[in-house]
Amino acid sequence: MAKESWLPDYSPASDFSLANIPFGIISTPDNQTPRPAIAIGDFALDLKTWLPMINKETVSDVFPGVDISQLTHALSQSTLNAFAALGRPVHRIVRKGIQDLLPKDTPFPQLLQDNEEGRTKALKRLSEVTMHLPMEIGDYTDFYAGYHHAYAVGVIFRGPENALQSNYMHLPVGYHGRASSIVVDGTPIRRPVGQILLDPKAEPKQPVVGPTRKLDIELELGCFISKPNEMGEAVDVKQAQEHIFGYVLLNDWSARDIQAWEYVPLGPFNGKNFGTTISAWIVLADALEPFRVKSEIENKTELQGYLKEEGEKGAFDIKLEVDLTTADGSETTIGRTSSKYLMWSFPQMIAHHTLGGCPMRTGDLLGSGTISGPGGVKERGSLLEMTENGKNEVLLAGMNARTFLKDGDSVTLRGFCDDGSGVRVGFGRCAGKIYSAVQR
Amino acid sequence: MAKESWLPDYSPASDFSLANIPFGIISTPDNQTPRPAIAIGDFALDLKTWLPMINKETVSDVFPGVDISQLTHALSQSTLNAFAALGRPVHRIVRKGIQDLLPKDTPFPQLLQDNEEGRTKALKRLSEVTMHLPMEIGDYTDFYAGYHHAYAVGVIFRGPENALQSNYMHLPVGYHGRASSIVVDGTPIRRPVGQILLDPKAEPKQPVVGPTRKLDIELELGCFISKPNEMGEAVDVKQAQEHIFGYVLLNDWSARDIQAWEYVPLGPFNGKNFGTTISAWIVLADALEPFRVKSEIENKTELQGYLKEEGEKGAFDIKLEVDLTTADGSETTIGRTSSKYLMWSFPQMIAHHTLGGCPMRTGDLLGSGTISGPGGVKERGSLLEMTENGKNEVLLAGMNARTFLKDGDSVTLRGFCDDGSGVRVGFGRCAGKIYSAVQR
Repeated sequence: MAKESWLPDYSPASDFSLANIPFGIISTPDNQTPRPAIAIGDFALDLKTWLPMINKETVSDVFPGVDISQLTHALSQSTLNAFAALGRPVHRIVRKGIQDLLPKDTPFPQLLQDNEEGRTKALKRLSEVTMHLPMEIGDYTDFYAGYHHAYAVGVIFRGPENALQSNYMHLPVGYHGRASSIVVDGTPIRRPVGQILLDPKAEPKQPVVGPTRKLDIELELGCFISKPNEMGEAVDVKQAQEHIFGYVLLNDWSARDIQAWEYVPLGPFNGKNFGTTISAWIVLADALEPFRVKSEIENKTELQGYLKEEGEKGAFDIKLEVDLTTADGSETTIGRTSSKYLMWSFPQMIAHHTLGGCPMRTGDLLGSGTISGPGGVKERGSLLEMTENGKNEVLLAGMNARTFLKDGDSVTLRGFCDDGSGVRVGFGRCAGKIYSAVQR
Repeated sequence: MAKESWLPDYSPASDFSLANIPFGIISTPDNQTPRPAIAIGDFALDLKTWLPMINKETVSDVFPGVDISQLTHALSQSTLNAFAALGRPVHRIVRKGIQDLLPKDTPFPQLLQDNEEGRTKALKRLSEVTMHLPMEIGDYTDFYAGYHHAYAVGVIFRGPENALQSNYMHLPVGYHGRASSIVVDGTPIRRPVGQILLDPKAEPKQPVVGPTRKLDIELELGCFISKPNEMGEAVDVKQAQEHIFGYVLLNDWSARDIQAWEYVPLGPFNGKNFGTTISAWIVLADALEPFRVKSEIENKTELQGYLKEEGEKGAFDIKLEVDLTTADGSETTIGRTSSKYLMWSFPQMIAHHTLGGCPMRTGDLLGSGTISGPGGVKERGSLLEMTENGKNEVLLAGMNARTFLKDGDSVTLRGFCDDGSGVRVGFGRCAGKIYSAVQR
């Protein structure tokens, strides 16, 4: 059963319910310094402002066993890296402590509910806060663990017989992405210019340079690393959960025509590095634990030992959707799927990524790869799949239709878990609007 | 003609001659704080220590037009990012100023030559300093601009008819690498464990997990970015020189068997991300200007406008060599080549990388791709090429031979330019020793 909160306008059906307590970086009109906060209902609780207002001993009652000076320091930075670095046991205690402050029957009313100064200074309406990139991201890696996506894209480019490469069922295929172009929800995305081969069959092959004609989205789940590993030391798949800070929605914007020409033999480059959007609030690893499920993708391949997990529930059933809003304001949900269609879990991705000794650092980001369901075009996480690389149109509200994105289009990813009894944990939105390419 | 210096044991034939003045990050037994320095002959000049010892007005005479407070601040950091961010015009003045302090006929003897306290505190023998990673590296991109390497590797994997993909002559092919595993000269490299397909022809394909059997090197030139570009804004190829801070040697260690199994369809991953070594001293862009040459690789393809450079001298004639020292101490030079065999210039790489709006940040690193010459196995920058993927052995001193690297082997890259009259600019060494894989 979902709990009620004393906060105004609170609904347990909010993405940011008491069951969630996601962390982000906010600023406000009266204080432009980016700083840590949690989201609860329609509010952000500014932790940098609130924590020092409370008597240290009382804080220790709420966050038992946590070094309060260290926590206060970590929660006064402009990113969440220092907080993430404190490790999952601390995140667990802090999340639980904040959860205890907010329900109607809070055992700590004096800390916030009855603390008028604290409420006034530290509780801000979400509509009044500006969100910032929550982490300083060292390296970004994008995997390809969405089985139905990998298969569908493989069919488009290589036909059904060679759709999946022979390594696909043996290891989580991934590549290094670009960290510098990761932006937070709401940041506009400029249509990239690139080299494009308009007629792939003509010889000799003669590319042109121009704005992409095949601007696409990729619906993904992102995972932030908390605990680092030393160079030369692999992370055991059974320990990998302790290296995870939390999760975000991720849109790995893609220019399919640029990508198709450039990607052999070293992989995607300018087709991907012009922008990647993540949702602003990081849902902590523990908030998703109640929503574990077995992956819907059965892998009959005998796995190498380093990829074998304990238990079967490596996936989460996060309900995902892609909404497309055209310049005239019409909004259409063009895809619905779930993260249960990921074939590899994040612990498996971490174990594979570090197998050869690659060091991961606090703040590194892993993308799952595009998530699509098995049920046809309405369950796809990319326009590439929905339109079979532009062959068919996706019909939209307001008499609109698309093969790929037009200037002025906005794409919004949403995702949430619920347990059927009204307990809900959601991600908020991961949105971006396309603006026109540079004139060249 | 090369100048002489008043410094003890100085020789103009040093890599770190008066014509060079490379920047690095040092620490010393008496001061463990990493800090900026330049190398000159057998010495490091500790800039963080020296600069505040000098009267501000005198410093202004040496570095005319530079904001000395800003410079002092930048040169007191633990990386060179803040100095790099000051921009190439400032680097030019500072390098020239330091060059003026060091010759026999220096116009500023009171600043260092006759300043006993300054000399004692700030001049350190290179043998006594520890070198650190010179930059905080945001993103690392590795290109594939070494034509002879790309061709030779293409022949090995796809045969002579398909050696080069059809995009190769149209754009600088590249991929995103891993920044977290970039280490400085001298850092040991652990042999990576990975998934390997021992028999690529057997069906069904069944990989094993174990230490790489094909540990290789890649001889490359690295380029650090100084001036950033905004997301969404491309850098004009004709302006790209102003975005370059300087150059290092780079060894992109590679596990060929891991790479061969994993790399389709998204590119190299664990076969590369276990370690990349760079030389410790950054040779500033201006130090290499006198050694510009036309690339030896003629590209008859009509280039897209954004890749067209002014002038023909886009390459440098940096003489490069690869030395392999076995555990018994025998050293053999196994490859000699030159960076004049790069088909794309760094300005072209920067223009291509940013064409779609990808932001580059101060401290980002670009690798050239492996550099090989046209003249057979002695001019190759990787063992993959020298041995035709392990078919032949490279004969070494001390009755040794190799197909790929063994545990205990050290690889040292060296590189220098000279103008024939004794003026020399060198990179020092870029070395790493292999130690054994994790037992699994």
